[in-house]
Amino acid sequence: MSATLAADEALARRRHAGERVLSLASGEIGLPVLPELADRLAAAAGGNAYGPVAGSAELRAAAAGYWARRGLGCDPGQVVCGPGSKPLLFALLLAAGGDVVVPVPSWVSYTAQATLAGARAIPVPIRPGEGGVPDPAALREAVAAARAAGRHPRCVVVTVPDNPTGTIAAPGTVRALGQAARDLDLVVISDEIYCDLVFDPLYPAVSPAAFAPERTVVTTGLTKNLALGGWRMGVARLPDGPLGRDLHTRLVAVASQIWSTTAAPVQAAAAYAFAEPPGVVARVAASRALHEAVAHAVARSFTAAGAELAPVRATSYLYPDFGPLRDRLARDHGVRGGDDLAALLAERYGMGVLAGPAFGEPRRSLRIRAATARLYGETPAERETALTSSDPLRLPWIRASLDRIAEILTDLTGSTT
Amino acid sequence: MSATLAADEALARRRHAGERVLSLASGEIGLPVLPELADRLAAAAGGNAYGPVAGSAELRAAAAGYWARRGLGCDPGQVVCGPGSKPLLFALLLAAGGDVVVPVPSWVSYTAQATLAGARAIPVPIRPGEGGVPDPAALREAVAAARAAGRHPRCVVVTVPDNPTGTIAAPGTVRALGQAARDLDLVVISDEIYCDLVFDPLYPAVSPAAFAPERTVVTTGLTKNLALGGWRMGVARLPDGPLGRDLHTRLVAVASQIWSTTAAPVQAAAAYAFAEPPGVVARVAASRALHEAVAHAVARSFTAAGAELAPVRATSYLYPDFGPLRDRLARDHGVRGGDDLAALLAERYGMGVLAGPAFGEPRRSLRIRAATARLYGETPAERETALTSSDPLRLPWIRASLDRIAEILTDLTGSTT
Repeated sequence: MSATLAADEALARRRHAGERVLSLASGEIGLPVLPELADRLAAAAGGNAYGPVAGSAELRAAAAGYWARRGLGCDPGQVVCGPGSKPLLFALLLAAGGDVVVPVPSWVSYTAQATLAGARAIPVPIRPGEGGVPDPAALREAVAAARAAGRHPRCVVVTVPDNPTGTIAAPGTVRALGQAARDLDLVVISDEIYCDLVFDPLYPAVSPAAFAPERTVVTTGLTKNLALGGWRMGVARLPDGPLGRDLHTRLVAVASQIWSTTAAPVQAAAAYAFAEPPGVVARVAASRALHEAVAHAVARSFTAAGAELAPVRATSYLYPDFGPLRDRLARDHGVRGGDDLAALLAERYGMGVLAGPAFGEPRRSLRIRAATARLYGETPAERETALTSSDPLRLPWIRASLDRIAEILTDLTGSTT
Repeated sequence: MSATLAADEALARRRHAGERVLSLASGEIGLPVLPELADRLAAAAGGNAYGPVAGSAELRAAAAGYWARRGLGCDPGQVVCGPGSKPLLFALLLAAGGDVVVPVPSWVSYTAQATLAGARAIPVPIRPGEGGVPDPAALREAVAAARAAGRHPRCVVVTVPDNPTGTIAAPGTVRALGQAARDLDLVVISDEIYCDLVFDPLYPAVSPAAFAPERTVVTTGLTKNLALGGWRMGVARLPDGPLGRDLHTRLVAVASQIWSTTAAPVQAAAAYAFAEPPGVVARVAASRALHEAVAHAVARSFTAAGAELAPVRATSYLYPDFGPLRDRLARDHGVRGGDDLAALLAERYGMGVLAGPAFGEPRRSLRIRAATARLYGETPAERETALTSSDPLRLPWIRASLDRIAEILTDLTGSTT
């Protein structure tokens, strides 16, 4: 079972049982639906036709425009939608065939999906501070070794910006990745679901589609930028050209056999969202600012407690490394690896996080992922207030969570010093 | 690509180009959304949380009640929902593992899904007039042969009532199937999405879960009884007991990696539908009566033209066999098999049907599937009128389609006699 969803459900059970919990495990964005989007969904409730497998013409045109505004020119014929970017990623692995290079660390589902698709994941480490993109030089070696061993690597999955690290691979690294993919004849599957949650224009997220357009599939959705995870909507942008057309045909065939189409009312609302009217643009901007403020505040607590943390450039994830505290954690708490650390945080402090091994790290690793987008409030009113606040860190419910996190980390790492 | 969806899209393109077409290819139910269901979806538009992978507690309780009212007692913990019963069926094949016995003929996606899941489909013929259930004696032989050849058959998919034949396997046959599955240690995956569209209480659809409860998974949805295909909603009822619990764990794990959850607003509306308030019950009854009237009327045309047809007991499908007209079709039209026949009907007459080979029949077979649930009207008003009419066959737009079908079949089979 997906580690994220499992941790989330376990924490929800503890909360329902009346325990005080801090939910930093799931990446779900704890913000309300933008009312104009809810209106669009409601207005489309009468839509019960299947429509095209790839998605309605309206949705595909809107998604194409969305990408074009981000420098990735796109014909609606290149767009395929699905009930989340997760099923699209799975179907792309089936459509591409062959083994799959994944970065370490990377999102919990890539490797699991590769296995379900009958393929093998080939783990390749990232460059420090550049999560989501396998080190291009190490990628070349790993693919050569896999081929020499009789395996058939066919694609590489990248995450730009990255989950779990909240970092963004440098454009030069992405360019080198694209060149390596071309030299090795790999399809690049670029999961860009966090592309609207980049904090600083000085550190942009550049898609591999800019460097290897003929072989890069881009996926995204409305789960992160507009908090619509529970609506289940994703889109893929297939490459232009013969490789892209072949992949498109295969992808639509797989989609037709697994999920048929995506909920029609959701497609209608998504078409509106991808067209980015002013209300949607403002909402995404407000969400991004809130993510940035809270993620940075939590990051400061981890750093203050002695964990190492690359600068967080995007998303609402932190990926602190408690490696510098290894001896103390072992001595005081018997913690020997990330799973021990996550279990301790959950059981002793009611703080849910995911341990590095869930993202492909070695068991010994003391990295954990803390997702901060569930700290905005327990009620819709609190969450709405957080979104519109000029200083969300001063809101009492957010302040209380931040203080509690600082207290937990102090107790964890400093209580016996 | 799914033959159904491909044929449907091709026909839609011809219609948009201004051609007169008769759409008998797709099984999509051409009826409007019941307004009280649309209201429920609209009211839940603010639901953007993921919720449990298996579905909301409310939905699972409602689905459990739905099955209990049909004689299949069910705890909500046995229910897993997904974005359509199609993805559930696919995930069940992955969860069960091993090769898959499928009836011949059977729905286009079972074999394709088995292949995508890395398994092999083992085709086993039905008994005449008892579609959807492999002949139990032939099943035993086929599984023994497959095992002797080193294969690992692990499940058998059945369809009760059946698509494509519109028939219902007799209870005795279903019982024998259940016994064979037990003897052979196979999981039975029973696709019962047409269970509410049985015309005559004298010929009921009995689930294999009645005979082999410990190993039968039942799937259904709202696509057929309430015409909600475009909403994408399915539910599975896992067996009680150790085999069922193991399958449940595996199914939820697979679901968590492929689709996470089902659209939350759709789940809310589905919970209402599965609770079967009076308005929903009345709507299903009206739909069933309409399907029965139109399917029987079209069946008479096929029979009058000389095709053979088992009595249609459920669904909105006919599966006529033009075998008795083989010589004439070959002589007059050069038709040698089902694909030729379907192509002729589409190109010469604008009548879309699916050929037997799409359902696993030999290429020589002259069986075709005609789906009649798109004949109820082109506009929502016409469709609504059809639903409430005491004599839908006299409505001019339905009459025109019926007359046109009769005319086509007469021209096809009798023009040169």
